[in-house]
Amino acid sequence: MTYQLYYWPGLQGRGEFVRLALEEAGAPYLDIARLPKAEGGGVGAMMKAMIDPAQPFTPFAPPFLKDGEVVVSQVANILAYLAPKLGLAPEGEAARLFAAGLQQTITDIVAEAHDTHHPIASSLYYEDQKAEALARSTDFIDSRIPKYLGYFEGILRKNPAGPAHIVGDKLTTVDLSLFQLVVGLKYAFPQGMTPFEAACPALTRLADAVAARPNIAGYLASDRREASNESCVFRHYPELDHDGTWGDKSP
Amino acid sequence: MTYQLYYWPGLQGRGEFVRLALEEAGAPYLDIARLPKAEGGGVGAMMKAMIDPAQPFTPFAPPFLKDGEVVVSQVANILAYLAPKLGLAPEGEAARLFAAGLQQTITDIVAEAHDTHHPIASSLYYEDQKAEALARSTDFIDSRIPKYLGYFEGILRKNPAGPAHIVGDKLTTVDLSLFQLVVGLKYAFPQGMTPFEAACPALTRLADAVAARPNIAGYLASDRREASNESCVFRHYPELDHDGTWGDKSP
Repeated sequence: MTYQLYYWPGLQGRGEFVRLALEEAGAPYLDIARLPKAEGGGVGAMMKAMIDPAQPFTPFAPPFLKDGEVVVSQVANILAYLAPKLGLAPEGEAARLFAAGLQQTITDIVAEAHDTHHPIASSLYYEDQKAEALARSTDFIDSRIPKYLGYFEGILRKNPAGPAHIVGDKLTTVDLSLFQLVVGLKYAFPQGMTPFEAACPALTRLADAVAARPNIAGYLASDRREASNESCVFRHYPELDHDGTWGDKSP
Repeated sequence: MTYQLYYWPGLQGRGEFVRLALEEAGAPYLDIARLPKAEGGGVGAMMKAMIDPAQPFTPFAPPFLKDGEVVVSQVANILAYLAPKLGLAPEGEAARLFAAGLQQTITDIVAEAHDTHHPIASSLYYEDQKAEALARSTDFIDSRIPKYLGYFEGILRKNPAGPAHIVGDKLTTVDLSLFQLVVGLKYAFPQGMTPFEAACPALTRLADAVAARPNIAGYLASDRREASNESCVFRHYPELDHDGTWGDKSP
């Protein structure tokens, strides 16, 4: 069965968390909106699939995944659906529920990362909310990044199965998503992330280990991996960045 | 088995979405942080349970639920866990996955409702970000409320089982959460919600029907239901409100 992933073309964005799971597993998938129109792709095909009036299970927004008759939307839900099928779920109910909480917490910081450049309205240009973006980014760098990454670092360090993975002793979708989170934050806020390696050595090792996995390394080197850019949730506007001093928020 | 719910006392907040499910089902639960210290309650007991170093499955933040050895965090996850146990899950995998997407979409608008009064930083007082809060609230009323509520109204109207429920033909946790969302938005933005009943008749009927359910009505009249207030994600600051004109965003 070939999965059909629907997400905006031209950026990593929220769809990237799903792509990384599919790529790691070597699962067959079509990235519909990136395909040519002649092959049934494009944004038009995505919107048609999304707002199809004959389909009662309409998602609110991309990304969404089709698997035969099943439609799943929202990144954390898509990954919870895919993980057991791709061999990327932790074992046991308690660990699976914990992974769901971690995945949702990643969703939360991704939304906050988006709002650093759009703190007033998604419908306005960044240029129309630059002063507010600077204020929000300042707090994001000083308070939110250390709080979230410090939390994940702490969880890694106290994983009873060791700090190589965030849950259990095998790779899960949450490990892959943490890699993408770290990549995105480093791209957006290189100065703000200066304290990262020293403050979060376990998370640094995890992100490096994910990048070195053969399927992930192959994907990152392929033209399927979009470059980071200013269409993504993680955007690099140098004027929003400043040296991070995580201080007592370090784990 | 008595569920243990952990959430900040003194407000409805995100915990309320969980409370409504437990109350509708008549499930036994303890609202730990609201209990007296002498009974093992209070915020201190909650924080102790949350950051227990011996517990590897540490939540990022309240609310979280304990069910024996199981710990679940994040509202959408808690409800996905409870729904089948409480008889509040839709039938079938496709409907369950769709409900998960809807629940997560409610999580998203709740976070946006929070940011109307805290668009720059949760760590700052509202009074320190009032101008930005007004700008964000203006967009929230004009664009985001109609977009989200219009989406839910459209889903209700095209439910093949009829518009009495958002998924299928039985009450689910998503119906309960939509009630709470409508109550919260009406409290926070009474002027902004003026077009609601006319634009969203199906969602209006759903919210009214939830309020009239015996267990919910009993709960709302009890002292277990906190009054809406300015500690919640839904806050009424009259200076942030203005007459909604949903216009072509109406479903």
